[in-house]
Amino acid sequence: MGKQFLEITEKKEVEEVIADLSVQIAKKIATKTEKVNVGRALGRIASADIFSPCNIPPFDRSTMDGYAVVASDTFYADESNPSTLIIKGYIPAGEFPSQSQHIEKGYCTGIATGAPVPKGANAVVKVENAREDGDRVKIYKPVAPAENIMPAGSDIKQGEKIIRNGTILTPRETGALAACGINEVLVRKKPSVAIVSTGNELVAPGTHLEPGKIYDVNAQTLSDSVIEMGCVPLFLGIAPDSLEEISAKLKESLITGADVIIISGGTSAGVGDLLPTAIEGLGEIIVHGVDIKPGKPFVLGMVQGKPVFGLPGNPTSALITFNLFVSPLLHTIAGIHSHNDEEDGKRIKKTKRIRAKAAVRIFSEPGRNEYVLVNLTKKIEEENAFFAYPILTGSGAITTLSKADGYIFVGKGKEIIEEGEEVEVELFKYLYSQN
Amino acid sequence: MGKQFLEITEKKEVEEVIADLSVQIAKKIATKTEKVNVGRALGRIASADIFSPCNIPPFDRSTMDGYAVVASDTFYADESNPSTLIIKGYIPAGEFPSQSQHIEKGYCTGIATGAPVPKGANAVVKVENAREDGDRVKIYKPVAPAENIMPAGSDIKQGEKIIRNGTILTPRETGALAACGINEVLVRKKPSVAIVSTGNELVAPGTHLEPGKIYDVNAQTLSDSVIEMGCVPLFLGIAPDSLEEISAKLKESLITGADVIIISGGTSAGVGDLLPTAIEGLGEIIVHGVDIKPGKPFVLGMVQGKPVFGLPGNPTSALITFNLFVSPLLHTIAGIHSHNDEEDGKRIKKTKRIRAKAAVRIFSEPGRNEYVLVNLTKKIEEENAFFAYPILTGSGAITTLSKADGYIFVGKGKEIIEEGEEVEVELFKYLYSQN
Repeated sequence: MGKQFLEITEKKEVEEVIADLSVQIAKKIATKTEKVNVGRALGRIASADIFSPCNIPPFDRSTMDGYAVVASDTFYADESNPSTLIIKGYIPAGEFPSQSQHIEKGYCTGIATGAPVPKGANAVVKVENAREDGDRVKIYKPVAPAENIMPAGSDIKQGEKIIRNGTILTPRETGALAACGINEVLVRKKPSVAIVSTGNELVAPGTHLEPGKIYDVNAQTLSDSVIEMGCVPLFLGIAPDSLEEISAKLKESLITGADVIIISGGTSAGVGDLLPTAIEGLGEIIVHGVDIKPGKPFVLGMVQGKPVFGLPGNPTSALITFNLFVSPLLHTIAGIHSHNDEEDGKRIKKTKRIRAKAAVRIFSEPGRNEYVLVNLTKKIEEENAFFAYPILTGSGAITTLSKADGYIFVGKGKEIIEEGEEVEVELFKYLYSQN
Repeated sequence: MGKQFLEITEKKEVEEVIADLSVQIAKKIATKTEKVNVGRALGRIASADIFSPCNIPPFDRSTMDGYAVVASDTFYADESNPSTLIIKGYIPAGEFPSQSQHIEKGYCTGIATGAPVPKGANAVVKVENAREDGDRVKIYKPVAPAENIMPAGSDIKQGEKIIRNGTILTPRETGALAACGINEVLVRKKPSVAIVSTGNELVAPGTHLEPGKIYDVNAQTLSDSVIEMGCVPLFLGIAPDSLEEISAKLKESLITGADVIIISGGTSAGVGDLLPTAIEGLGEIIVHGVDIKPGKPFVLGMVQGKPVFGLPGNPTSALITFNLFVSPLLHTIAGIHSHNDEEDGKRIKKTKRIRAKAAVRIFSEPGRNEYVLVNLTKKIEEENAFFAYPILTGSGAITTLSKADGYIFVGKGKEIIEEGEEVEVELFKYLYSQN
């Protein structure tokens, strides 16, 4: 780091700074671990190789309902000339053969699928190929040694690695842990993100609204966006527009041990420099202003090795800058992204962008990197293509956010997107199915 | 319903029965609701239309730093001929103008972005277009009435619908609730799924493994798979292979109020009929046996209006039949699927299938609908195409599951998939990013 921009930074440069920073912080964070019960491990990332403490199966296991035999007793048996064996009882699944059920030539035991094969037996004849008659059974088809038996440890050997460090635990991995009797697993801690709202005018939802005040929106949208990125939000409350109070919140964020700090608000003339000043008092400013609209007053600083993001107070601008700059960092440090890269591309990234056609002419200010909020509509009569309509309510409006499905980027060099032109829409909505 | 199959049913017919059943149950379940704090509402589904209790903004709000004025006082002002107004103090964000700050012609107040516009003022002059001089300010550019003011209620009107019944709550919706000061929201209850493992040989992971016993895997894989489908698992423990005990677990499932019941295990000869018999004692059997491998002993019954799924005990077979038959039902009743359909296709379904090439010849038994487990590898030298390798360990192995990325379907009429042939792989892994 160390580089300090006193001027507006180009978006691309900010992205590069954040990409570098993400990798550094991801390395530090990957070493933070915690033990969790396997029952709560779904979707977490293993933080160590895991080895089986036992053989699976733990014993030679029958894979069929039938008779445990000495294989050579059945050789040459057929329909017209069956082998006849004396039955020494039955072994159901879940019971271990008694000493009296040990098998020698001329004998067998009945056996259930999943039951342990008794000592002396080396194959299992399927029930379809045998017929019981009193204490004897006729075998009509030969079995080779080891047939219909799953030997102890053939699935997983004691000491075998069952899960690699860095693996995301899906039901198949938690199932493998269960199979080995493992109850607890060491996983990476989810990165924690301190969130602070600033603004004299803000009060928390659910409290009384004094004249001149408005409800704080960013605490909610940013906390939920942090959860979507696989991190844990830690809302530290609303700070008034004062250098002292904002500095105090920064220090409180550090004390909580948060890995990342997000502070929103404070972009109007009188208060726009409070956060940068607070950051400089404790660390350094990396970015102060980006060439995008909305989102120009974006701030990035470093305080005691922790990135501090300063987002605009306006909810739409806050969410757009979060998506552009904070979410790539959180995505990487939550370990999901790096995992993607490690696993030969087997993991699939969430779909975040879709192609659409501009439903009308869309104008953008010349010389500006502008993000235009759009609403998507699928037109059946046009082969189900998506059409993007720009949203015309102001960027300060909450309804802008609820109406928008996403935004399109209109670069500096472009002023007009023609009706019907193809655009790429960055979606706000992630894919929900669990939470 | 009411139809009862005594014979092996075709897969397609089972799927149709389950699709019908899903819609019926989804309707019933959509009426079950609960209140949650907005802070815990992310990803949940609103179960009623939600209306704003207040205007947003709650007052006429300045959108700029500048001066609240009577617009007509600024008409015809320019650089050479500014209007001069007397300043009646300053209104910061969060404070309400005092009576002494009410404006009449010839006067103005300083005002911050977000602050309430004082009575009498009808426009805000940007700070860039004014210059202060003692208790007066010179205005160099005219403003039209309403300029730089966001009127009370212009974003959201008191009583306006802000969220539609059935909407999935993303950060943008929870943000809209926060903006309106709403703290609690009525959402659909997540469907609950009772899970029972059966088998004399099973013990819970974390307990001592007596000889002849194995650890229960399905409790873990099925619970986690239920979570992946947006439902709540409720594991009721392991039942031994006895009609009495299995019937008791079925009754217990009903008492818990579970919406769906899953019972795995019990497919060997001696115990294979226990679950169907238990179901018949309390309700009716709909399906008993499907023409697929693995998964042939699949059972579907109805008990007191609740679907009961009987899955094979083998973990791989259990997970494949879960994916084939249980997961479409859970997906629908969790409300995600129907929502997809309602919202003009704006929501994107999770990617569950990918195309790959058979890496080697793959054989299947003739006359069988077979699911072949495969491992996927991306070959860079082949344009990053995915190649599917069949997994050759037995279907009883836990390692089969951990190695498999998914499975391909080989229909009755097909015996061989040639090397290089395109196949569609149904993935086990869902997209993890949060949990």
